[in-house]
Amino acid sequence: MSTTTIEMTGALEPRSDWAAERCPMARALEILHTRSAFLVLREAFYGATRFDEFVARTRLSEPVTAARLRELVDEGILDTEPYREPGQRTRRGYRLTEKGADLLPVLVSLMHWGDKWALEGGAGVEIRHRDCGAAVLAELRCADGHAVGPEELALARR
Amino acid sequence: MSTTTIEMTGALEPRSDWAAERCPMARALEILHTRSAFLVLREAFYGATRFDEFVARTRLSEPVTAARLRELVDEGILDTEPYREPGQRTRRGYRLTEKGADLLPVLVSLMHWGDKWALEGGAGVEIRHRDCGAAVLAELRCADGHAVGPEELALARR
Repeated sequence: MSTTTIEMTGALEPRSDWAAERCPMARALEILHTRSAFLVLREAFYGATRFDEFVARTRLSEPVTAARLRELVDEGILDTEPYREPGQRTRRGYRLTEKGADLLPVLVSLMHWGDKWALEGGAGVEIRHRDCGAAVLAELRCADGHAVGPEELALARR
Repeated sequence: MSTTTIEMTGALEPRSDWAAERCPMARALEILHTRSAFLVLREAFYGATRFDEFVARTRLSEPVTAARLRELVDEGILDTEPYREPGQRTRRGYRLTEKGADLLPVLVSLMHWGDKWALEGGAGVEIRHRDCGAAVLAELRCADGHAVGPEELALARR
Protein backbone atom coordinates (compact mmCIF):
# COMPACT_ATOMS: atom_id res chain seq x y z
CA MET A 1 0.00 0.00 0.00
CA SER A 2 2.56 2.51 1.16
CA THR A 3 5.61 3.33 -0.95
CA THR A 4 7.69 3.10 2.22
CA THR A 5 7.21 -0.63 2.53
CA ILE A 6 10.43 -2.61 2.63
CA GLU A 7 10.48 -5.28 -0.09
CA MET A 8 10.88 -8.88 1.08
CA THR A 9 13.36 -10.80 -1.06
CA GLY A 10 14.40 -14.43 -1.60
CA ALA A 11 13.33 -16.80 1.17
CA LEU A 12 11.85 -13.85 3.09
CA GLU A 13 8.99 -13.55 0.60
CA PRO A 14 6.22 -13.92 1.69
CA ARG A 15 6.60 -12.34 5.14
CA SER A 16 3.93 -14.67 6.54
CA ASP A 17 6.24 -17.67 6.10
CA TRP A 18 8.90 -16.72 8.67
CA ALA A 19 9.03 -15.54 12.27
CA ALA A 20 11.17 -12.54 13.25
CA GLU A 21 12.75 -14.53 16.06
CA ARG A 22 16.14 -12.86 16.02
CA CYS A 23 14.99 -9.33 15.34
CA PRO A 24 17.87 -6.97 16.18
CA MET A 25 15.47 -4.06 16.74
CA ALA A 26 13.47 -6.05 19.29
CA ARG A 27 16.70 -7.08 21.01
CA ALA A 28 17.93 -3.46 21.13
CA LEU A 29 14.63 -2.45 22.74
CA GLU A 30 14.92 -5.18 25.36
CA ILE A 31 18.06 -3.39 26.52
CA LEU A 32 16.78 0.17 26.04
CA HIS A 33 13.41 -0.71 27.47
CA THR A 34 12.41 2.56 29.08
CA ARG A 35 12.20 6.22 28.23
CA SER A 36 14.37 6.90 31.27
CA ALA A 37 17.21 4.82 29.76
CA PHE A 38 17.18 7.15 26.75
CA LEU A 39 17.19 10.23 29.02
CA VAL A 40 20.26 8.93 30.86
CA LEU A 41 21.93 8.21 27.51
CA ARG A 42 21.07 11.69 26.23
CA GLU A 43 22.83 13.23 29.23
CA ALA A 44 25.85 10.96 28.75
CA PHE A 45 26.09 12.34 25.19
CA TYR A 46 25.61 15.85 26.60
CA GLY A 47 28.64 15.33 28.84
CA ALA A 48 27.28 14.18 32.21
CA THR A 49 29.64 11.84 34.05
CA ARG A 50 28.64 12.13 37.72
CA PHE A 51 25.60 10.60 39.39
CA ASP A 52 24.34 13.97 40.64
CA GLU A 53 24.63 15.42 37.13
CA PHE A 54 22.51 12.60 35.70
CA VAL A 55 19.85 13.13 38.40
CA ALA A 56 19.71 16.92 37.96
CA ARG A 57 19.72 16.92 34.16
CA THR A 58 17.34 14.03 33.46
CA ARG A 59 15.02 15.11 36.32
CA LEU A 60 14.56 11.45 37.13
CA SER A 61 14.49 10.36 40.77
CA GLU A 62 17.71 9.15 42.39
CA PRO A 63 16.55 5.50 42.57
CA VAL A 64 15.44 5.47 38.91
CA THR A 65 18.67 7.16 37.78
CA ALA A 66 20.72 4.67 39.80
CA ALA A 67 18.81 1.71 38.35
CA ARG A 68 19.25 2.93 34.76
CA LEU A 69 22.97 3.64 35.23
CA ARG A 70 23.45 0.17 36.70
CA GLU A 71 21.61 -1.49 33.79
CA LEU A 72 23.54 0.51 31.20
CA VAL A 73 26.83 -0.45 32.88
CA ASP A 74 25.74 -4.12 33.03
CA GLU A 75 24.97 -4.01 29.30
CA GLY A 76 28.36 -2.49 28.50
CA ILE A 77 26.85 0.75 27.22
CA LEU A 78 28.45 2.84 29.96
CA ASP A 79 31.52 2.08 31.97
CA THR A 80 32.72 3.55 35.21
CA GLU A 81 35.93 5.10 36.33
CA PRO A 82 36.82 6.39 39.74
CA TYR A 83 37.24 10.11 40.28
CA ARG A 84 37.97 12.14 43.35
CA GLU A 85 37.37 15.77 44.07
CA PRO A 86 39.58 17.59 46.60
CA GLY A 87 38.62 16.72 50.17
CA GLN A 88 35.99 14.17 49.10
CA ARG A 89 35.87 10.41 48.92
CA THR A 90 36.44 8.57 45.66
CA ARG A 91 33.29 8.28 43.54
CA ARG A 92 32.31 6.52 40.31
CA GLY A 93 32.05 8.48 37.07
CA TYR A 94 30.22 7.16 34.03
CA ARG A 95 31.11 7.40 30.39
CA LEU A 96 29.98 5.94 27.09
CA THR A 97 31.74 2.87 25.79
CA GLU A 98 32.12 2.27 22.06
CA LYS A 99 28.91 0.22 22.23
CA GLY A 100 27.17 3.16 23.90
CA ALA A 101 28.61 5.78 21.56
CA ASP A 102 27.27 3.72 18.65
CA LEU A 103 23.73 4.57 19.81
CA LEU A 104 24.18 8.14 18.57
CA PRO A 105 22.25 7.62 15.30
CA VAL A 106 19.32 6.21 17.31
CA LEU A 107 19.17 9.31 19.52
CA VAL A 108 19.70 11.72 16.64
CA SER A 109 16.95 10.11 14.55
CA LEU A 110 14.52 10.17 17.51
CA MET A 111 15.35 13.83 18.18
CA HIS A 112 14.88 14.74 14.56
CA TRP A 113 11.54 12.96 14.31
CA GLY A 114 10.26 14.42 17.58
CA ASP A 115 11.29 17.89 16.50
CA LYS A 116 9.62 17.59 13.10
CA TRP A 117 6.45 15.74 14.04
CA ALA A 118 5.73 15.71 17.75
CA LEU A 119 6.70 19.03 19.28
CA GLU A 120 4.56 22.02 18.41
CA GLY A 121 6.89 24.90 17.53
CA GLY A 122 9.93 22.64 17.50
CA ALA A 123 12.56 21.95 20.11
CA GLY A 124 14.45 25.24 20.16
CA VAL A 125 17.75 23.36 20.08
CA GLU A 126 19.40 21.33 17.36
CA ILE A 127 22.49 19.27 16.77
CA ARG A 128 24.83 20.92 14.29
CA HIS A 129 27.97 19.96 12.44
CA ARG A 130 30.63 21.80 14.41
CA ASP A 131 32.75 22.59 11.36
CA CYS A 132 30.07 24.08 9.09
CA GLY A 133 27.14 24.81 11.41
CA ALA A 134 24.56 22.91 9.35
CA ALA A 135 21.93 20.78 11.11
CA VAL A 136 22.78 17.09 11.54
CA LEU A 137 20.41 14.21 10.93
CA ALA A 138 20.53 10.46 10.54
CA GLU A 139 20.22 9.69 6.84
CA LEU A 140 19.77 6.33 5.16
CA ARG A 141 22.89 5.41 3.18
CA CYS A 142 24.21 2.16 1.82
CA ALA A 143 27.70 0.79 2.31
CA ASP A 144 28.46 1.79 -1.29
CA GLY A 145 27.81 5.42 -0.36
CA HIS A 146 24.46 5.98 -2.09
CA ALA A 147 21.77 8.06 -0.41
CA VAL A 148 18.87 5.59 -0.15
CA GLY A 149 15.23 6.62 -0.47
CA PRO A 150 12.54 4.86 1.57
CA GLU A 151 11.22 3.18 -1.59
CA GLU A 152 14.61 1.60 -2.38
CA LEU A 153 14.83 -0.84 0.54
CA ALA A 154 14.89 -4.62 0.44
CA LEU A 155 15.10 -7.08 3.32
CA ALA A 156 17.40 -10.00 2.53
CA ARG A 157 18.97 -12.97 4.24
CA ARG A 158 22.71 -12.58 4.84
CA MET B 1 35.62 12.40 29.02
CA SER B 2 34.41 10.57 25.97
CA THR B 3 35.18 11.88 22.49
CA THR B 4 31.55 11.22 21.60
CA THR B 5 30.28 13.98 23.85
CA ILE B 6 28.20 16.60 22.06
CA GLU B 7 29.62 20.07 22.61
CA MET B 8 27.29 22.60 24.24
CA THR B 9 27.43 25.99 22.51
CA GLY B 10 26.30 29.57 23.23
CA ALA B 11 23.63 29.88 25.91
CA LEU B 12 23.57 26.06 26.24
CA GLU B 13 27.00 26.07 27.93
CA PRO B 14 27.12 24.97 30.72
CA ARG B 15 24.56 22.17 30.49
CA SER B 16 23.73 22.56 34.19
CA ASP B 17 22.16 25.98 33.52
CA TRP B 18 19.17 24.83 31.46
CA ALA B 19 16.44 22.21 31.66
CA ALA B 20 15.67 19.97 28.68
CA GLU B 21 11.99 20.78 28.95
CA ARG B 22 11.14 20.53 25.28
CA CYS B 23 13.33 17.59 24.43
CA PRO B 24 12.17 16.17 21.08
CA MET B 25 13.65 12.77 21.89
CA ALA B 26 11.70 12.54 25.14
CA ARG B 27 8.54 13.60 23.28
CA ALA B 28 9.09 10.98 20.59
CA LEU B 29 9.44 8.33 23.29
CA GLU B 30 6.21 9.43 24.95
CA ILE B 31 4.50 8.43 21.73
CA LEU B 32 6.57 5.31 21.03
CA HIS B 33 6.51 4.28 24.65
CA THR B 34 6.60 0.51 24.33
CA ARG B 35 8.60 -2.15 22.59
CA SER B 36 5.31 -3.45 21.16
CA ALA B 37 4.75 -0.11 19.36
CA PHE B 38 8.05 -0.62 17.56
CA LEU B 39 7.12 -4.21 16.65
CA VAL B 40 3.84 -3.02 15.11
CA LEU B 41 5.75 -0.33 13.21
CA ARG B 42 8.30 -2.85 12.00
CA GLU B 43 5.53 -4.95 10.51
CA ALA B 44 3.94 -1.89 8.90
CA PHE B 45 7.30 -1.28 7.19
CA TYR B 46 7.43 -4.99 6.27
CA GLY B 47 4.10 -4.63 4.49
CA ALA B 48 1.43 -5.71 7.01
CA THR B 49 -1.87 -3.90 6.55
CA ARG B 50 -4.49 -6.18 8.14
CA PHE B 51 -5.11 -6.69 11.85
CA ASP B 52 -4.58 -10.45 11.66
CA GLU B 53 -1.25 -9.90 9.86
CA PHE B 54 -0.03 -7.59 12.64
CA VAL B 55 -1.04 -10.15 15.30
CA ALA B 56 0.59 -13.11 13.53
CA ARG B 57 3.82 -11.32 12.61
CA THR B 58 4.49 -9.39 15.81
CA ARG B 59 3.40 -12.36 17.98
CA LEU B 60 1.72 -9.88 20.28
CA SER B 61 -1.69 -10.72 21.74
CA GLU B 62 -4.80 -9.45 19.96
CA PRO B 63 -5.63 -6.91 22.70
CA VAL B 64 -2.08 -5.51 22.78
CA THR B 65 -1.93 -5.33 18.99
CA ALA B 66 -5.31 -3.57 18.88
CA ALA B 67 -4.22 -1.07 21.56
CA ARG B 68 -0.97 -0.25 19.74
CA LEU B 69 -2.70 0.14 16.36
CA ARG B 70 -5.27 2.45 17.95
CA GLU B 71 -2.57 4.61 19.59
CA LEU B 72 -0.53 4.80 16.39
CA VAL B 73 -3.64 5.85 14.44
CA ASP B 74 -4.50 8.44 17.14
CA GLU B 75 -0.98 9.87 16.84
CA GLY B 76 -1.22 10.09 13.05
CA ILE B 77 1.54 7.53 12.50
CA LEU B 78 -0.79 5.04 10.82
CA ASP B 79 -4.04 5.72 9.04
CA THR B 80 -6.82 3.36 8.13
CA GLU B 81 -8.64 2.58 4.95
CA PRO B 82 -11.48 0.18 4.41
CA TYR B 83 -10.92 -2.98 2.42
CA ARG B 84 -13.17 -5.88 1.59
CA GLU B 85 -12.38 -9.41 0.56
CA PRO B 86 -14.88 -11.39 -1.54
CA GLY B 87 -17.78 -12.65 0.56
CA GLN B 88 -16.57 -10.89 3.72
CA ARG B 89 -17.58 -7.73 5.56
CA THR B 90 -15.62 -4.51 5.13
CA ARG B 91 -12.60 -4.28 7.44
CA ARG B 92 -10.04 -1.63 8.29
CA GLY B 93 -6.54 -1.78 6.82
CA TYR B 94 -3.61 0.16 8.27
CA ARG B 95 -0.81 1.95 6.51
CA LEU B 96 1.99 4.33 7.38
CA THR B 97 1.35 8.05 7.00
CA GLU B 98 4.17 10.42 6.05
CA LYS B 99 4.72 10.99 9.79
CA GLY B 100 4.99 7.24 10.29
CA ALA B 101 7.20 6.64 7.26
CA ASP B 102 9.57 9.26 8.66
CA LEU B 103 10.36 6.88 11.54
CA LEU B 104 12.35 4.66 9.18
CA PRO B 105 15.79 6.02 10.28
CA VAL B 106 14.85 5.29 13.91
CA LEU B 107 14.03 1.67 13.11
CA VAL B 108 17.04 1.21 10.82
CA SER B 109 19.44 2.63 13.42
CA LEU B 110 17.97 0.42 16.18
CA MET B 111 18.25 -2.65 13.90
CA HIS B 112 21.81 -1.85 12.98
CA TRP B 113 22.85 -1.33 16.61
CA GLY B 114 21.08 -4.49 17.80
CA ASP B 115 22.68 -6.51 15.02
CA LYS B 116 26.17 -5.20 15.75
CA TRP B 117 26.12 -5.15 19.54
CA ALA B 118 23.26 -7.09 21.06
CA LEU B 119 22.63 -10.23 19.04
CA GLU B 120 25.20 -12.98 19.24
CA GLY B 121 25.90 -14.17 15.70
CA GLY B 122 23.92 -11.33 14.15
CA ALA B 123 20.39 -11.13 12.89
CA GLY B 124 20.60 -13.25 9.77
CA VAL B 125 18.68 -10.60 7.83
CA GLU B 126 19.64 -7.12 6.72
CA ILE B 127 18.18 -4.15 4.93
CA ARG B 128 19.83 -3.60 1.57
CA HIS B 129 19.77 -0.94 -1.09
CA ARG B 130 17.55 -2.51 -3.74
CA ASP B 131 19.50 -1.04 -6.65
CA CYS B 132 23.03 -2.05 -5.62
CA GLY B 133 22.54 -4.69 -2.93
CA ALA B 134 24.77 -2.99 -0.33
CA ALA B 135 23.70 -2.90 3.33
CA VAL B 136 21.79 0.18 4.46
CA LEU B 137 22.38 2.08 7.66
CA ALA B 138 21.44 5.39 9.25
CA GLU B 139 24.47 7.65 8.98
CA LEU B 140 25.00 11.06 10.53
CA ARG B 141 25.07 13.74 7.84
CA CYS B 142 24.62 17.48 7.93
CA ALA B 143 22.30 19.51 5.72
CA ASP B 144 25.34 20.62 3.71
CA GLY B 145 26.00 16.99 2.80
CA HIS B 146 29.06 16.27 4.95
CA ALA B 147 29.44 12.92 6.67
CA VAL B 148 29.65 13.89 10.35
CA GLY B 149 31.77 12.02 12.88
CA PRO B 150 30.60 11.63 16.50
CA GLU B 151 33.31 14.08 17.63
CA GLU B 152 32.04 16.83 15.31
CA LEU B 153 28.68 17.54 16.97
CA ALA B 154 27.52 20.71 18.68
CA LEU B 155 24.19 21.43 20.36
CA ALA B 156 22.96 24.94 19.59
CA ARG B 157 19.89 27.07 20.07
CA ARG B 158 17.95 27.67 16.87
